[in-house]
Amino acid sequence: MGPAVSGTRKAKLWGGRFRQDTAKSVLAFTSSLPFDRRLYREDIAGSIAHARMLAKQGIISSTEGEAIVNGLVALREEMDRGQFAFDPHLEDIHTAIELALAERIGEVAGKLHTGRSRNDQVALDLRLYVKGAIDQLTGLIQGLERALVGLAEAHVQTIMPGYTHTQRAQPVLLAHHLLAYFEMLERDRERLGDCRRRADVLPLGSGALAGTTFNIDRDFVARELGFGQVSRNSLDAVSDRDFIVEFLAAASLVMAHLSRLAEEVVLWSTPEFGFLTLDQAYATGSSIMPQKLNPDPAELVRGKAGRVFGHLVGMLATLKALPLSYSRDLQEDKEGLFDTVDTVQASLEVLAGLFSTVKVNAPAMRRAAQEGYATATDAADYLARRGLPFRQAHEIVGQLVRYAEERGKALAELSLEEFRRFSALFREDIHQALTVEASVAARDVYGGTAPGQVQARLEEAKRILGMPADGP
Amino acid sequence: MGPAVSGTRKAKLWGGRFRQDTAKSVLAFTSSLPFDRRLYREDIAGSIAHARMLAKQGIISSTEGEAIVNGLVALREEMDRGQFAFDPHLEDIHTAIELALAERIGEVAGKLHTGRSRNDQVALDLRLYVKGAIDQLTGLIQGLERALVGLAEAHVQTIMPGYTHTQRAQPVLLAHHLLAYFEMLERDRERLGDCRRRADVLPLGSGALAGTTFNIDRDFVARELGFGQVSRNSLDAVSDRDFIVEFLAAASLVMAHLSRLAEEVVLWSTPEFGFLTLDQAYATGSSIMPQKLNPDPAELVRGKAGRVFGHLVGMLATLKALPLSYSRDLQEDKEGLFDTVDTVQASLEVLAGLFSTVKVNAPAMRRAAQEGYATATDAADYLARRGLPFRQAHEIVGQLVRYAEERGKALAELSLEEFRRFSALFREDIHQALTVEASVAARDVYGGTAPGQVQARLEEAKRILGMPADGP
Amino acid sequence: MGPAVSGTRKAKLWGGRFRQDTAKSVLAFTSSLPFDRRLYREDIAGSIAHARMLAKQGIISSTEGEAIVNGLVALREEMDRGQFAFDPHLEDIHTAIELALAERIGEVAGKLHTGRSRNDQVALDLRLYVKGAIDQLTGLIQGLERALVGLAEAHVQTIMPGYTHTQRAQPVLLAHHLLAYFEMLERDRERLGDCRRRADVLPLGSGALAGTTFNIDRDFVARELGFGQVSRNSLDAVSDRDFIVEFLAAASLVMAHLSRLAEEVVLWSTPEFGFLTLDQAYATGSSIMPQKLNPDPAELVRGKAGRVFGHLVGMLATLKALPLSYSRDLQEDKEGLFDTVDTVQASLEVLAGLFSTVKVNAPAMRRAAQEGYATATDAADYLARRGLPFRQAHEIVGQLVRYAEERGKALAELSLEEFRRFSALFREDIHQALTVEASVAARDVYGGTAPGQVQARLEEAKRILGMPADGP
Amino acid sequence: MGPAVSGTRKAKLWGGRFRQDTAKSVLAFTSSLPFDRRLYREDIAGSIAHARMLAKQGIISSTEGEAIVNGLVALREEMDRGQFAFDPHLEDIHTAIELALAERIGEVAGKLHTGRSRNDQVALDLRLYVKGAIDQLTGLIQGLERALVGLAEAHVQTIMPGYTHTQRAQPVLLAHHLLAYFEMLERDRERLGDCRRRADVLPLGSGALAGTTFNIDRDFVARELGFGQVSRNSLDAVSDRDFIVEFLAAASLVMAHLSRLAEEVVLWSTPEFGFLTLDQAYATGSSIMPQKLNPDPAELVRGKAGRVFGHLVGMLATLKALPLSYSRDLQEDKEGLFDTVDTVQASLEVLAGLFSTVKVNAPAMRRAAQEGYATATDAADYLARRGLPFRQAHEIVGQLVRYAEERGKALAELSLEEFRRFSALFREDIHQALTVEASVAARDVYGGTAPGQVQARLEEAKRILGMPADGP
Repeated sequence: MGPAVSGTRKAKLWGGRFRQDTAKSVLAFTSSLPFDRRLYREDIAGSIAHARMLAKQGIISSTEGEAIVNGLVALREEMDRGQFAFDPHLEDIHTAIELALAERIGEVAGKLHTGRSRNDQVALDLRLYVKGAIDQLTGLIQGLERALVGLAEAHVQTIMPGYTHTQRAQPVLLAHHLLAYFEMLERDRERLGDCRRRADVLPLGSGALAGTTFNIDRDFVARELGFGQVSRNSLDAVSDRDFIVEFLAAASLVMAHLSRLAEEVVLWSTPEFGFLTLDQAYATGSSIMPQKLNPDPAELVRGKAGRVFGHLVGMLATLKALPLSYSRDLQEDKEGLFDTVDTVQASLEVLAGLFSTVKVNAPAMRRAAQEGYATATDAADYLARRGLPFRQAHEIVGQLVRYAEERGKALAELSLEEFRRFSALFREDIHQALTVEASVAARDVYGGTAPGQVQARLEEAKRILGMPADGP
Repeated sequence: MGPAVSGTRKAKLWGGRFRQDTAKSVLAFTSSLPFDRRLYREDIAGSIAHARMLAKQGIISSTEGEAIVNGLVALREEMDRGQFAFDPHLEDIHTAIELALAERIGEVAGKLHTGRSRNDQVALDLRLYVKGAIDQLTGLIQGLERALVGLAEAHVQTIMPGYTHTQRAQPVLLAHHLLAYFEMLERDRERLGDCRRRADVLPLGSGALAGTTFNIDRDFVARELGFGQVSRNSLDAVSDRDFIVEFLAAASLVMAHLSRLAEEVVLWSTPEFGFLTLDQAYATGSSIMPQKLNPDPAELVRGKAGRVFGHLVGMLATLKALPLSYSRDLQEDKEGLFDTVDTVQASLEVLAGLFSTVKVNAPAMRRAAQEGYATATDAADYLARRGLPFRQAHEIVGQLVRYAEERGKALAELSLEEFRRFSALFREDIHQALTVEASVAARDVYGGTAPGQVQARLEEAKRILGMPADGP
Repeated sequence: MGPAVSGTRKAKLWGGRFRQDTAKSVLAFTSSLPFDRRLYREDIAGSIAHARMLAKQGIISSTEGEAIVNGLVALREEMDRGQFAFDPHLEDIHTAIELALAERIGEVAGKLHTGRSRNDQVALDLRLYVKGAIDQLTGLIQGLERALVGLAEAHVQTIMPGYTHTQRAQPVLLAHHLLAYFEMLERDRERLGDCRRRADVLPLGSGALAGTTFNIDRDFVARELGFGQVSRNSLDAVSDRDFIVEFLAAASLVMAHLSRLAEEVVLWSTPEFGFLTLDQAYATGSSIMPQKLNPDPAELVRGKAGRVFGHLVGMLATLKALPLSYSRDLQEDKEGLFDTVDTVQASLEVLAGLFSTVKVNAPAMRRAAQEGYATATDAADYLARRGLPFRQAHEIVGQLVRYAEERGKALAELSLEEFRRFSALFREDIHQALTVEASVAARDVYGGTAPGQVQARLEEAKRILGMPADGP
Repeated sequence: MGPAVSGTRKAKLWGGRFRQDTAKSVLAFTSSLPFDRRLYREDIAGSIAHARMLAKQGIISSTEGEAIVNGLVALREEMDRGQFAFDPHLEDIHTAIELALAERIGEVAGKLHTGRSRNDQVALDLRLYVKGAIDQLTGLIQGLERALVGLAEAHVQTIMPGYTHTQRAQPVLLAHHLLAYFEMLERDRERLGDCRRRADVLPLGSGALAGTTFNIDRDFVARELGFGQVSRNSLDAVSDRDFIVEFLAAASLVMAHLSRLAEEVVLWSTPEFGFLTLDQAYATGSSIMPQKLNPDPAELVRGKAGRVFGHLVGMLATLKALPLSYSRDLQEDKEGLFDTVDTVQASLEVLAGLFSTVKVNAPAMRRAAQEGYATATDAADYLARRGLPFRQAHEIVGQLVRYAEERGKALAELSLEEFRRFSALFREDIHQALTVEASVAARDVYGGTAPGQVQARLEEAKRILGMPADGP
């Protein structure tokens, strides 16, 4: 029989050697319960697997094991139902659950922590959480991809100006433009998958830092929890947060992509561009200007990229120069992680909705593609194909553009004679070569904007996304 | 009489031109109420001043003004008492307050928004908030300064090794070391003060972006709210978040300083250093290792520096390349700001408590200062003072140290004869010159570690902090 | 006479106790000479002041002092002329200069380092450098301000759409828009000035960390070098890099402002906006698209903001959790600082040139301001001024806009009768109230866009910049 | 025959439509030649493959193709020998090489740019560079791993205190501690490998943004250059810098790991810890304190982590909200990348050297492991194994530690009777169970610190690194 545990100490998983209570401000400062309670399902899943293993190994009796598992299952249901009242004076979710278990099943709850430490326990919870978050986010990425691909499918014929330097450059298909984001998002999925693979390592069994003295079965626990690997070094396992940094970096790239897409939504829905009309369900108004219809959701996605970059930086700075193994600084791993998951999730959902409902102004796009000199490269290629070194062809067409511009004409409005004043290589077919249709069709290279190429990429994307072959 | 306002639209300050409701996910995504409700006092203060001004200028009647002001005061009391139920479907704190006011005082509430916009209103709220936060934090900085100065006062005679490269370098007084942090914190206070000066500019009256068409009195509002200046350009005023970036940068430096102090707490309370014993109220234990007494509060302060750096980066990234004037990206200014204020506040409080209760192991410090060769510079200075170029003196003493080290002796344990083998300039007083007391006393330069200098700096610090002359 | 200094050791200011040479890779890794040679003028200025002080105090003879000063002056001239060959094997600029001095004036050079250390020396150099850099940058900021104010002066009558959410919001004067940047840049100047004040503290005399044993005169050195203050704590003085972080933060805000301005250049010079035509001297072309005229300088300014933010983060991360006093990590303070100065300088110069030469398309701006419903707020204010609560007025005009939009009309194209269908408060003067001129003129509040207000702000700006009253 | 190209325009690959020269300051601001000349080998390799393909496809004649290839090979040799004088007025490395080629082989050089653009060319160069850099860095990572594993092998028996919170926690083997870094570095290698896979995509053929009108063979070029994939979307391919961000993120984690290792070098080589003695080739001295032997290389590695984090942030901020496709902001991708490669490379080399030469003070480590109460967990496990719930066992041992501490005794110095005063479960074997050897041996779990486990991990590491089975 152990000595009595004094009242105030019951709120902690330690205290035997302490003569004095923790300062109230310290308790509030160090408690992670306000945010790590979000991990309750992961924590309980880990404890159930641990308890089963302890019983299997005979470290606790099977009756004890059952009592613990049943107690944990009941607790989880209570929490799922939102009926569990978390005591704000507790240190963390592990403490909250262990003490609640003790209240419900008595002293035997004290056997659950045999052969483990909060250091390997929290590492376990976080790895379970990150794996789950990645599964959820990759699903949402596909949701946005489907919305983009669906819109692309409706616009395989829509010609718009392709931009470099935010200046009209060459005509492209809108579908081609939208599929560029499909490529980015596919890389994001792949990158998150790589991160998931590195998160998929069971740390439990590393104890506080050095392993445990009990005859545990780590492979059993790994199987129970669905981990592909078991960690190889206990000191590393309790202080490794690489998988969180890697997740934040991958999430930062997702947000970088979404911020680019959002920027285009903002630009394209200005009256100056006039390419898109947002559905009113995806726009907001002004408290003072009655005419306003603002692309707030897109602006917020764009702005929120900064927040995720900040979480990445914060985590890296926190890890810097920490000696092994666990230090309390590592508690800072959670809030930025949770907020990142929430931010990426909401941004993906909102953009998927936005692109499922947006109206494209195809005539405006086409008009913009035709204005100006977007097919000048085609004129230079025309000359180069007739034997002129490209560098000279470029020079000549530059002068041609200047000539046309000074006369306020488009290239296509110049007469053949005018063309030939600059090079005798120009023939009658030059006007045809400079239409936006011809320009787009001519880029018939793998990855290029020619309709056939884009259609093939679109089919590929649909296959990857499991979309029906005939339409979105 | 205006047309009926439909049920669902009541939840917004706009909607007349919208044929369609906002998507639910968009509402959740764009709503700032979950965090900006923290600004309710600032928002109400601004509205009261605005209403008074509208009445004074005759833009609304004085009866209307009174009704609005009384309604707002009542609302604030309700919120202060925690009795106000915020509707999570509202867009922001401004909407929540205006609608609640309308419920309480009727249609006249709709006159409050005359001559202003949420764009200048939120800028106002944030400036009021930042000014208040700075006032609070500078008070807490002084609290930590007092704790450090109090400890310094108790240790004006305590000699410890001064470190460079975390290697013992020269003996210094503990008081001198502690007062180095006083200097850092004083700069922090000054820097926050400069930031406050730049935040102290009334933006109200800038309208949505271009000013207002009503005959408002901005100076009156500024006086009511205690602003020193009135903004000079409306486009700038509604899109300027410089004061937040500047605050986050100043807070980052505070946290950088606190992280350095925390690092020393961690190091000095290791058994290897053994310089400090933390009060148990400022330490925590382990769930598995019963002997542990960990410096968690200091570790967390150190770790939390990263989070504040992250908020700074996030805000800068969000502002980058935003065209004028207000864009919704700016809504991202709040959460990082609030979290920074909370983090800096708690870190200052915890460290003040820690330093008010920590025990210094002065004998261990002195022992460490005497071991090794911490007074070797004094030997070189000794030679230089006797005419040898310092560069040669340095070289000779380097060889002397190597000689002593190879024999396992301290410098002071070498005989005069041994000293003279390296330079004939050494005399009998060399042993005295190499004591830690002599070393410390010799650095009698402004800013140096000689007891008189340190005592003078200490007095100065106490005067600045308003501490009694005789003791802490 | 000191012992012989061996050949290889001559390359360092230390080595007496070392039995072994530094590894070559370590030498290359730790040497700062490749970048800190940029500080040679600051280093020599500091050494001259230090030598004069040593002589004045009798620590060295006046002949020695003169020899040292003359040697340093000659060395500086050699370096100014680019004739000094830096030996890449030396540790830093301090070593390079001290060894070069010894070569030129012999053993007496070895007395220069009396009473100082590289730790206070490098802190001195950096403070001198930052002060100089701030002086230069504030001059360049004024250069850009003059270009903007000059352009504003030419466009006090030019009406353009003011934007919120990158959507047309209310008409404003182009001059008003440009002066918003004047406000930002003035804050930048002020902020840099505050930073300069905190950098203006002499650290020399702090020695390696604890002060010095020599009877130095720090005030004399401060006066010689033009410092306003002398540092108060030696431990702090050698490890304080706050002024660098503060400079980087201020520079980050400058770049944030320039990135916003650059974004507008990019947007406004698209054919879609068509507000600006860049001078060809401030645009570049494409290697493949002959028609291209790209706003590359603006894009680069926008992009370079990221680099400066990165330097700020890097410095904060480097400082985090460094125990006192000097650690070699601090050597990382220089490259980011230098690059920031170069980046901000070039960005300011390029934008000043761009705005001095850009052509404004005033008719396009005016056309854009007239299209759409940019004066809808004026309609709401019209009703509110006639007694309707603003909230109801807003609702009514929202419906009016929707009505007009459905008929493809501008507000001004509605008949009075149509107006009155929505509110009987509309009178004949409503059409006049909705012109862009009336809208701009009505915002006649301090900080607003009414011509008189803008003109007054413009005069103020010109006075601040010392520009002639009559024109740019 | 093409029109004459005017003198000044020769310095650019464009200019036909320009009536005016680029401003000098703009030229200096926009030129990337000062840093992208580092890519000359990648650029020439790409051009050779492109020229071969053009000839193979009959787009240029085989004679032309040969002339171009031979010219490029000669140029590369000239550059390899350092004999090529780069003209600082040129825009970039692509221009420098194309113009130099034209000087050497005449007009035919102008055909090289057929069917490509600088946009896909620079993307190609960067991908080749990143792939090469990753190959080099993974080799250097292995170099450091070998140094650590070699030291581990010499210390499989060395017992030291394992730390949590920088407080002694439980005894571990030094080899176990060193192998924790092996795990981190292996993850780094894997992560860089994943990044390499995503960089291994040929962008050439994407043209400026839309593909090309020439009948090119992208697969041929991919094979020539050793690329595993060909990009699928031209708009994405010219504006995708994900692989650089991903590389910087992976490099940031490498530096985070190295900073942790460096921190331990700094701590462990203090006299307070006394665990390591640095070889003098890997330490530096002080210009003023003759006794100093500072761990500068480790400090610099620690400090340089900040710089790499900064480059990562800078790149993310630069990418944020850039509309498609190429914008000049992307030029900012290079300097941070190059500096990161250099920094990581040098840091790995220096630490590998440091760990190959450092001396371990094994007795000091063992002494530290034995002092204090590092085996208290073993006492609690002892009780738990005898049936006491772990939570109670922890509580009892906590009180035991407190009891011993108050008497100034180690746990092992308590008599059996004293032990039994706290629990009757203690038996005679308790003293044996509390030795550091027993403690280490008891953690015989996969990943734990028991000698057999560590030996097995060590053999595995050696096998992975290709080190001989018998020794380092």
